Amino acid sequence: MGKNRLEAFSDGVLAIIITIMVLEMKVPHGETVAALLPLAPVFLSYVLSFVYVGIYWNNHHHMLHLAGKVNGAVLWANLHLLFWLSVLPFATGWMGENHFAGGPSALYGAVLLMAAAAYWILQQAIIRGDGTNSTLARAVGRDWKGRISPAIYVVGIAVSLHAAWAAQCLYAAVALLWLVPDRRIERVLDAR
Amino acid sequence: MGKNRLEAFSDGVLAIIITIMVLEMKVPHGETVAALLPLAPVFLSYVLSFVYVGIYWNNHHHMLHLAGKVNGAVLWANLHLLFWLSVLPFATGWMGENHFAGGPSALYGAVLLMAAAAYWILQQAIIRGDGTNSTLARAVGRDWKGRISPAIYVVGIAVSLHAAWAAQCLYAAVALLWLVPDRRIERVLDAR
Amino acid sequence: MGKNRLEAFSDGVLAIIITIMVLEMKVPHGETVAALLPLAPVFLSYVLSFVYVGIYWNNHHHMLHLAGKVNGAVLWANLHLLFWLSVLPFATGWMGENHFAGGPSALYGAVLLMAAAAYWILQQAIIRGDGTNSTLARAVGRDWKGRISPAIYVVGIAVSLHAAWAAQCLYAAVALLWLVPDRRIERVLDAR
Amino acid sequence: MGKNRLEAFSDGVLAIIITIMVLEMKVPHGETVAALLPLAPVFLSYVLSFVYVGIYWNNHHHMLHLAGKVNGAVLWANLHLLFWLSVLPFATGWMGENHFAGGPSALYGAVLLMAAAAYWILQQAIIRGDGTNSTLARAVGRDWKGRISPAIYVVGIAVSLHAAWAAQCLYAAVALLWLVPDRRIERVLDAR
Repeated sequence: MGKNRLEAFSDGVLAIIITIMVLEMKVPHGETVAALLPLAPVFLSYVLSFVYVGIYWNNHHHMLHLAGKVNGAVLWANLHLLFWLSVLPFATGWMGENHFAGGPSALYGAVLLMAAAAYWILQQAIIRGDGTNSTLARAVGRDWKGRISPAIYVVGIAVSLHAAWAAQCLYAAVALLWLVPDRRIERVLDAR
Repeated sequence: MGKNRLEAFSDGVLAIIITIMVLEMKVPHGETVAALLPLAPVFLSYVLSFVYVGIYWNNHHHMLHLAGKVNGAVLWANLHLLFWLSVLPFATGWMGENHFAGGPSALYGAVLLMAAAAYWILQQAIIRGDGTNSTLARAVGRDWKGRISPAIYVVGIAVSLHAAWAAQCLYAAVALLWLVPDRRIERVLDAR
Repeated sequence: MGKNRLEAFSDGVLAIIITIMVLEMKVPHGETVAALLPLAPVFLSYVLSFVYVGIYWNNHHHMLHLAGKVNGAVLWANLHLLFWLSVLPFATGWMGENHFAGGPSALYGAVLLMAAAAYWILQQAIIRGDGTNSTLARAVGRDWKGRISPAIYVVGIAVSLHAAWAAQCLYAAVALLWLVPDRRIERVLDAR
Repeated sequence: MGKNRLEAFSDGVLAIIITIMVLEMKVPHGETVAALLPLAPVFLSYVLSFVYVGIYWNNHHHMLHLAGKVNGAVLWANLHLLFWLSVLPFATGWMGENHFAGGPSALYGAVLLMAAAAYWILQQAIIRGDGTNSTLARAVGRDWKGRISPAIYVVGIAVSLHAAWAAQCLYAAVALLWLVPDRRIERVLDAR
């Protein structure tokens, strides 16, 4: 069973998620440039989430490229990942409207944590489906990024109620960590 | 006439349906985690509908994979299915906002019933178009899941005005029934 | 220059148009089935527009299938068609909320008229690009449906301010006319 | 690594951007044709932005057609372009609701400027990835359109606070400049 339609559907959902987040930026009523200022936190939270969805799309693109077979477990693991990413616009909007307050920052971290877990489950489902010679398994290797990210999210959630700015810094740090393209996969590809 | 564009268009519509449902979860005004509690029923109804659209996408994916030819009747039967699924976000939002009350639960069941009928019509249109040697016809077989689901929806609608929780249990039970991937089709594919 | 991406983009836009119209059906506040009654005209206008977008998608699918080359003029003629179809959700919502009143019915007819004109322009652009041996030109033939539809829309617009119900009947009649799949194109295809 | 999925994802995002802008045209409450008049500026700003997104889609289509390889830098340069285009619906809505006032016109020009810069960065990333024999590099040539557009946007932003109508004229002039299909690329393609 081909993986093209899985990619097409995921692309569609990710394209919609990345775009509807901008609908949370409600058009202000004044017409002066100053009327934009209160929107700054909403804009910043949009930027952060745009980068995160971009990272997921990017990594999803690389991972599926190495996947061999797509079975029922992979289809549902993929939908599970899309589910948590689809909650991101809600968490983003709540965080932006409350100026990065503690509660919304904790929820934002929790959604990131669930998405990271779902991504890991999807990776495992693909590797299990492909068997011991899985190209993806070799490419992923020890996966230190995938291991450290959830730990940082957990710390972020823990500190968010006391120092929300620290949580934001942690979330942004993880995004920067992933912005670097996944050399592991490119290396394996070049070696083929 | 190829089926690629039919799949692409269906993927687009299903991707939008599954994603815009999350827009019903309006960002709460408070910034405490407690402010999220009233959203619990909206979230739960979103989860249920996400699973249902996921099931339809999954089964649609499998069914089209076995379809041979796409004629005008199939195109319109497919649009008819997409129509009823496009009403699901509305029914989901109404049910979530009214905490799974009787009326909205009945409507939700009715939309599920119409979608199931539309799916059956689409299946018949494909089988008729492919003729007596239809691979899909052999894969579907006696189709006990497709027969029992509408019956359960009807029971759900009937009890919803008296015991809405029972209707919810029935709808969730049907979803679980379908979450198991369609072995019938995978078996026929393996046998080829 | 291939036509795949033109089809993919058009599918995306049409999928979004057909789905966002349902967002005009605002979730009612009551929880009784009776609370749905005021939404009946909104629902009916949604059904009509869903059928129209379905017809356009269907015919677009057939037309592009016969197109040979896609040049700059075709790309822009296609965007022009998508523009008028993108205004349909607005016209639909206005008509539904005002219970098929005269003004909104006239606007609805005007949008249908512009879309029909844009479709004709697109057809001409493709035929001109393909030259005298255009398969599409032979398939379209005298195009009586394409000629009569705008005339009926004009009559609909003219009567809408005096008898809006008559305009609705005319719009629905044109939709029925097109619901019949385009035998001309299927005949030419079979003859190849 | 193929460019198909990059195109598909970009098509999805651009299709959503071009379509959700119409959601800013809120259905008016009256039912007379006169009730539409206050929406005229919103409609005009929608037309302008629709043309701009259409231009970007068109040029993106041509550019990717000539691109050889898609690496990580191209993926992120592409997401960067999509980010600025995703802010266009917000700028469009603000400008339309404030009848093309100075502040919103300045923001609109700023978003166009950022999108133009992002497009240039994407072009450079593709050319760098393809090496000295890049087909795109030869097709782009001296790129006078790409050089003059940002300059006109800057002038537009500068005059917008004093004479917003002049800024609008400048933005529309750039759109007209680009509406002419990119002969440079078509010439290179024909010469192959």
